[in-house]
Amino acid sequence: MADKPTEPAPENPPAAAAPAGGEEGGEAGPSKKALKKAEAKAKKEAEKAKRAAEHAEKQAAAKAAAGNTEDLAKDNYGPETKATKVDAERVHLKDLGEQHLGKTIKLRGWIQNSRMQGAKMCFVEIREERNWAIQGVLAASAEGKPVSRQMVKWAGGLNLEGFVLLEGRVEKPLDPVKSVRVSGYELHITKCYLISPGPEVLGMTFAVANKAVTNFDDEDAAPAATGVEEVKDGVANLSVEGVAGASMITHLNNPAMHKRAPVQQAIADIRMVTRKLFAEYLEARGFNQFEPPCLIGAASEGGSNVFGMTYFDKQAYLAQSPQFYKQYEIAGGRKRVFSIGPVFRAENSNTPRHMTEFTGLDLEMEIEESYTEVIDMLEGVLLFILRNLREKCADQIAIVRSVYPSEDFAFPEPGKEVRLTFAEGQALLRAEGPEEFRNVTDHEDMSTAQEKALGALVRKKYGTDFYVLDKFPQEARPFYALEDPENPEITRSFDFMMRNQEILSGGQRIHDPKVLEARIRRKGIDPNSPGIKEYVDVFRSCGVPPHGGGGIGLDRVVAWFLNLPSVHLASFYPRTPKRLAP
Amino acid sequence: MADKPTEPAPENPPAAAAPAGGEEGGEAGPSKKALKKAEAKAKKEAEKAKRAAEHAEKQAAAKAAAGNTEDLAKDNYGPETKATKVDAERVHLKDLGEQHLGKTIKLRGWIQNSRMQGAKMCFVEIREERNWAIQGVLAASAEGKPVSRQMVKWAGGLNLEGFVLLEGRVEKPLDPVKSVRVSGYELHITKCYLISPGPEVLGMTFAVANKAVTNFDDEDAAPAATGVEEVKDGVANLSVEGVAGASMITHLNNPAMHKRAPVQQAIADIRMVTRKLFAEYLEARGFNQFEPPCLIGAASEGGSNVFGMTYFDKQAYLAQSPQFYKQYEIAGGRKRVFSIGPVFRAENSNTPRHMTEFTGLDLEMEIEESYTEVIDMLEGVLLFILRNLREKCADQIAIVRSVYPSEDFAFPEPGKEVRLTFAEGQALLRAEGPEEFRNVTDHEDMSTAQEKALGALVRKKYGTDFYVLDKFPQEARPFYALEDPENPEITRSFDFMMRNQEILSGGQRIHDPKVLEARIRRKGIDPNSPGIKEYVDVFRSCGVPPHGGGGIGLDRVVAWFLNLPSVHLASFYPRTPKRLAP
Repeated sequence: MADKPTEPAPENPPAAAAPAGGEEGGEAGPSKKALKKAEAKAKKEAEKAKRAAEHAEKQAAAKAAAGNTEDLAKDNYGPETKATKVDAERVHLKDLGEQHLGKTIKLRGWIQNSRMQGAKMCFVEIREERNWAIQGVLAASAEGKPVSRQMVKWAGGLNLEGFVLLEGRVEKPLDPVKSVRVSGYELHITKCYLISPGPEVLGMTFAVANKAVTNFDDEDAAPAATGVEEVKDGVANLSVEGVAGASMITHLNNPAMHKRAPVQQAIADIRMVTRKLFAEYLEARGFNQFEPPCLIGAASEGGSNVFGMTYFDKQAYLAQSPQFYKQYEIAGGRKRVFSIGPVFRAENSNTPRHMTEFTGLDLEMEIEESYTEVIDMLEGVLLFILRNLREKCADQIAIVRSVYPSEDFAFPEPGKEVRLTFAEGQALLRAEGPEEFRNVTDHEDMSTAQEKALGALVRKKYGTDFYVLDKFPQEARPFYALEDPENPEITRSFDFMMRNQEILSGGQRIHDPKVLEARIRRKGIDPNSPGIKEYVDVFRSCGVPPHGGGGIGLDRVVAWFLNLPSVHLASFYPRTPKRLAP
Repeated sequence: MADKPTEPAPENPPAAAAPAGGEEGGEAGPSKKALKKAEAKAKKEAEKAKRAAEHAEKQAAAKAAAGNTEDLAKDNYGPETKATKVDAERVHLKDLGEQHLGKTIKLRGWIQNSRMQGAKMCFVEIREERNWAIQGVLAASAEGKPVSRQMVKWAGGLNLEGFVLLEGRVEKPLDPVKSVRVSGYELHITKCYLISPGPEVLGMTFAVANKAVTNFDDEDAAPAATGVEEVKDGVANLSVEGVAGASMITHLNNPAMHKRAPVQQAIADIRMVTRKLFAEYLEARGFNQFEPPCLIGAASEGGSNVFGMTYFDKQAYLAQSPQFYKQYEIAGGRKRVFSIGPVFRAENSNTPRHMTEFTGLDLEMEIEESYTEVIDMLEGVLLFILRNLREKCADQIAIVRSVYPSEDFAFPEPGKEVRLTFAEGQALLRAEGPEEFRNVTDHEDMSTAQEKALGALVRKKYGTDFYVLDKFPQEARPFYALEDPENPEITRSFDFMMRNQEILSGGQRIHDPKVLEARIRRKGIDPNSPGIKEYVDVFRSCGVPPHGGGGIGLDRVVAWFLNLPSVHLASFYPRTPKRLAP
């Protein structure tokens, strides 16, 4: 970097350098808050000045070195353009073992922390991926190679989160290095090239990024200011204890740093393993994946929460679920299908439970004898996911818990699944629930508060965070839900609950076009309206077998399994009414 | 069905029945076309009348039977409501074997064809799934059970594509049944219940659905008429040879029948296996799947082809590719990522090669030494897909070819991959291509016509339908493409070709924010414009390793691999400027 002409020159290095050592000073001031703020500002400026001074010093040293003594290590460090091919064996930190002791290896990673010790030695923490970091040591030798004083100084002045290519010898440290995961080894660096420099000041440090998000309010904007302010403590040194977390806005304004945090990578892993387990279980049972469209021609499933757009000379909408399309696949003879993809809700809800774009895990299947086959399948796939996550993602779950503490998610062993009918649930609420639910009836839909209260009762009674609530009243369900022939007031439909919140809705659908049309009319919908007619026509066009299915909200499964404070943390790029970036 | 009061009564059955046998008659008329049309109309009406007559006859017979002789088989057939539990072993046709001979099994499926033989016998073809169908035989016994004359008549009158539940004995037929896949067995039906009736007249028959689509023009609408007209021949009997195919509009207006066609199910299988092979190859090489958003806040990648929409108090757009988001994942330390999901292009192109929504298979990876690592990976995954499709989908490929004949897709063995530079490609065109390409230069982009001509030359010279065209001129590439340090007129970017058409674009991206900003300016874009600034800021926010990747159009890979006449056939629900349904 030093030799790049485009590098901005440090401003007034001597003047700025002066207060560098004085960051601890300060008179007794007015309010504690103001003091803290001023302190932070001073600290930040001192930090900046310190870097500038180091930069100037570095340049001066380089110049002096060039003039006076030859830098015998000059080919061993420098910017990307100077990087000669490093031929040593490429080893990844997670594979590092006793067999590498004394050997020279090649490593790439981010500078997570660095600390000069006198003028001849520098310690740098290099993070290769996630939380896999190692301590690197640069020590200038008497003869000035492979490491010179100039090289140590240069490396010590590199900005945090810059990306470097290293060559070094693997050694045992005197004591285990507690600040990094690879505590049993250290790297004695012999070559160091800066592939991609870090910024002068980070928008959010790695340490802050890996703390719990402090709030999810996306209304109090002015994001840039928030970002810098909340980040102040973490800039200088990752090992500072008690560093505060940042708001979700700061995280979203610093997407790369947000994603570098091990906690976010662990959540991402758990999310994608969940997706894969869903597919694995179903494929083993004869399900075919298919791709429903996002663009649809009519807002057929509840008009108000749908995004509309101009589509050439027409109007288009974004699908709120793959419901109709799953059923078209069944009508099309595909027997058992599932889909994994984005769905959209134009709901102006600014809560940690809502997003406008999320991932649906959906399935639909032919029913042979009873709609309970559908419950069996959905319960089976969810318990398979929960069981396997616990085993396959133990490492990731531990990382998440170190930031967002939670109790183990409790779920039943095979054969001990908990299924309540809606009526039984309401009866339980009336009998044992809070005072305000003593008069709930079997024909009104359940509120979120009721769901939570019932979930608590179920947890107490059955020891599970996962259960099924079956046979919802017909008023609470959409027009395609099949009414129970024995009691038309209830439907063959159900919700699945995780930690007292709904994560799945499903049921048997109407496959007879006459019954379907009658029920559409009873719901006050015109069966000839756009989208609806096309839907009913499919059932008129050929015999469609009895079928049912369900839709799972992936974001919610991940968030509630881990007991995260918001689904936004479970999403790669959360979309809310206030936020479409990054 | 017969006992349902809601069933519409046939209109004027005796009058309509009269011309039923006279469909061959007809004077020499005016134009051939008009004659054909009239003939079709007459045929259709005759068909309708025939069914009506049968229906009336059936009802009369049932009434007579009820009055005169007791129907001893009456519990063995009827509508869904009457279906008693059939307890016999459930066997799927593809598993049917010698061990089932003489045994009674349970089967569900669609009536694909039916034929009365006298009053006591009926042959029905039952299709369980795809092209797995068996011949069923209903023969009334002297004692009237388990099958009565009434039962035979009832079953013989069932509409095509109705869904039935059967019980029957597996027997060897006298001769193999050529019209069905399960030719070595037949089912002697003892119980038959109509779970879901077929329509009086099919919008498109199974036979027509499984023919090649005749045209993809979506401008000449009046779809209902087209559908009925093109379908006439197939209604009565599936075994009619030489039945014509229908237009894509007819297929899309009859989605369930379109999807029931084995050719469409085979294409769907190949599509989803392609997706899975893509993921399998990459996951084995340390790639993490991630989910890019569809909703984005700025039209950052080429403004004109993007769908815009109102998003609460803001404007939103639909992502044209996951490009920026793949790069954010790399900046976020994810090393190697891929995504599989929908992308959107608001391009008003009404061709068989274009859709407004399609599936992108995208990957992005850190580069260690050279951007050729990216080519290696992409070439590797595509050849893996091609090799495995040939083996794993041999059955499906054969089904597709029986409808859309094609030559084997030719691709190189490992170590014999064909990579040309763009300049080499142009040189080849100049030297050996058609007259009009004798003066092409190395700095202009290639036209579709040039691509086709070059593909033909490559096929002739190297015997492959798959090759790589590398080092595109910088004018032909987007702003994030890295220029070759040795020659800034060309970029480290490439296209992959299948059957002379592009299916992939990729390359190394700029990771240095200063270089990126300079290049954005050189492309005439304001680096502070919405979306662009946010993108550059990510590279400013922390050191991003060198990286590259590519995006594959799944629909095109499937369509060109199978040499289909249109990508619309490869899609589950093709979206075009004229079409958003079903």
